[in-house]
Amino acid sequence: MPQLRALVLAGGSGSRFWPLSRRDRPKQLLPIAGGASLLRRTLERLAPLTPTEAQWVSTTVELRSAIERELSELSPERIIAEPESRNTAPAIAWTLARMPRADDSLPVAVLPSDHHVADAEAFRDALEAAANAAMERRCVVTLGVPPERPETGFGYLELAEPAPAEAEAVAVTRFYEKPDAETARRFAASGRHLWNAGIFVFAPEVLLAHLAAHQPEIHRAVGKVRAGGLDAVAEALIYAALPAVSIDHGVMERLGTGDVLTLPLRCGWSDLGSWEALAGTLPADERGNHVRGDVLALDARDNVLFSDAGTIAVLGVDGLVVVRSGDAVLVLPRERSQDVRRIVAELERAGRRDLL
Amino acid sequence: MPQLRALVLAGGSGSRFWPLSRRDRPKQLLPIAGGASLLRRTLERLAPLTPTEAQWVSTTVELRSAIERELSELSPERIIAEPESRNTAPAIAWTLARMPRADDSLPVAVLPSDHHVADAEAFRDALEAAANAAMERRCVVTLGVPPERPETGFGYLELAEPAPAEAEAVAVTRFYEKPDAETARRFAASGRHLWNAGIFVFAPEVLLAHLAAHQPEIHRAVGKVRAGGLDAVAEALIYAALPAVSIDHGVMERLGTGDVLTLPLRCGWSDLGSWEALAGTLPADERGNHVRGDVLALDARDNVLFSDAGTIAVLGVDGLVVVRSGDAVLVLPRERSQDVRRIVAELERAGRRDLL
Repeated sequence: MPQLRALVLAGGSGSRFWPLSRRDRPKQLLPIAGGASLLRRTLERLAPLTPTEAQWVSTTVELRSAIERELSELSPERIIAEPESRNTAPAIAWTLARMPRADDSLPVAVLPSDHHVADAEAFRDALEAAANAAMERRCVVTLGVPPERPETGFGYLELAEPAPAEAEAVAVTRFYEKPDAETARRFAASGRHLWNAGIFVFAPEVLLAHLAAHQPEIHRAVGKVRAGGLDAVAEALIYAALPAVSIDHGVMERLGTGDVLTLPLRCGWSDLGSWEALAGTLPADERGNHVRGDVLALDARDNVLFSDAGTIAVLGVDGLVVVRSGDAVLVLPRERSQDVRRIVAELERAGRRDLL
Repeated sequence: MPQLRALVLAGGSGSRFWPLSRRDRPKQLLPIAGGASLLRRTLERLAPLTPTEAQWVSTTVELRSAIERELSELSPERIIAEPESRNTAPAIAWTLARMPRADDSLPVAVLPSDHHVADAEAFRDALEAAANAAMERRCVVTLGVPPERPETGFGYLELAEPAPAEAEAVAVTRFYEKPDAETARRFAASGRHLWNAGIFVFAPEVLLAHLAAHQPEIHRAVGKVRAGGLDAVAEALIYAALPAVSIDHGVMERLGTGDVLTLPLRCGWSDLGSWEALAGTLPADERGNHVRGDVLALDARDNVLFSDAGTIAVLGVDGLVVVRSGDAVLVLPRERSQDVRRIVAELERAGRRDLL
């Protein structure tokens, strides 16, 4: 395989792990699944396939210095900050524009920086197979996760044929946004729908051609940056004028069936999208409590108990998330983990920047 | 009425408000019902009846300096520390022994330091009536609270006749320890049982006579201390040899029916015996949440939410106690508030003195 490069998206400001995640410490910078930060674990997982000098990180100006500290071995020139937050299509293009043109024929994998992977080797095998398919068939090749449950929080990929058992790429006929519960149940049972893990591989020249067709402003911006001679202010003005559009919505969903393939990803993947999702990565005690930190649980079952400062003591409660981080405590039922965003929104409304 | 003196018991190490209460900051030193500490509020409530120079405080050597700081206007000679923790009978006797013998004919009221009283004037009226009855009838006169619910956490006084509507003393026929649920229901409905609030008034010479009859060792110790000439070590040795017995068990329950009277106390009394009991003294929001401190509650009902450091955010939970104090967080159902003691016991077992 030609040398695969990694383009890791680390610009997210995710609020779903409040109070652990804050503006200046978003999810990808948290050591939330044990050990290093999710971002560092992402790059370490990729390293056998994409060595450090083939790794690029896309982030925001706000997070840039925190990420430089976190990834001190990465050359700062390969940490690309959006001048201001757009969505994934401009962010990916902005980083592609910094990659050497001479490498345009080499594959690039775009990956989130804040997911969990239990089996790193299976993950790399799938990614390598995707890269090979992308180069051989001149397609964008996504990795799709066989659904484990009728999840309504993810996007889905619809396949032209049932998902293969082997690492074999099949055509994607349609992208779906987050479905309703009924549709999610149908998708989970169909054998022809995979979770969209937000991971895809392509030859830059292939993606640039798709950008030219479907996001011409973004494509032109890449050309201007690559031509060189612009100062930071001029570049920022170009970037600010770009449409804030996701790569899925702005490009992928507009491609023909023959242009997007998917490979099934079977590696114990989790998007770690909520405290509930995190529970799956924390070992449970004999009563089903998933615990991190200094915690005392009496007569308590099936809770997620997480402290990074001080002690949590619970008694006689079931199915709760209890988090203590820094100056804040969060308590809510596990099945309402997604609603942490409502708390963050309320704190924003109340001007409580001290807590965000 | 002859000048009433107050003997306030402030030696308790109560663990039922953990994590707010700690070894060096027991419940009576907490500003738990708003404003000043419960101890200070107790003395302020008494002041119109028993001025500062008529107030005595019994405590332990561990708490003595904290109490001197809290009650800086009280002469230190009227803060009497048990050399080591016994129970209420020795503690009361030890303080009585320090009171001037010339005042032995003046009434003394023994009172806990950690209760809540909504109507201070009604409280003083009842106490004054009890003092008058104690002097006129040469009895120990307790204050009894008409039961508001079939509480199993309190002791009960059984009356010779139904509790009078007026402030009138009636004979106590029996003391009951904490009853079972069935007995508590019967007591609450009988009209002839009152909660034992632990408040009682007597002429010292009357109580000393009862001590002589039922706790002769304690009575002898009072005599030795009153005789004077002992140094602190000698006094401590005498105290250490005393039986650890409560005034109820060691004296009150052993008296004849004619020797103990009770007066009904109707003043919005609460023993503040648990987080659940505290809820009754905190105003509730429109969803029934009792809140103190920096708290955000969304879709949450009937919780007790208490923070003295940092922020608590809850969402979608009902009927919980959530407390954040210092380095610890507590979460449990309101109806299990009493079980905080199990947490404290577990922390003791685990040697977590940092949390106690």
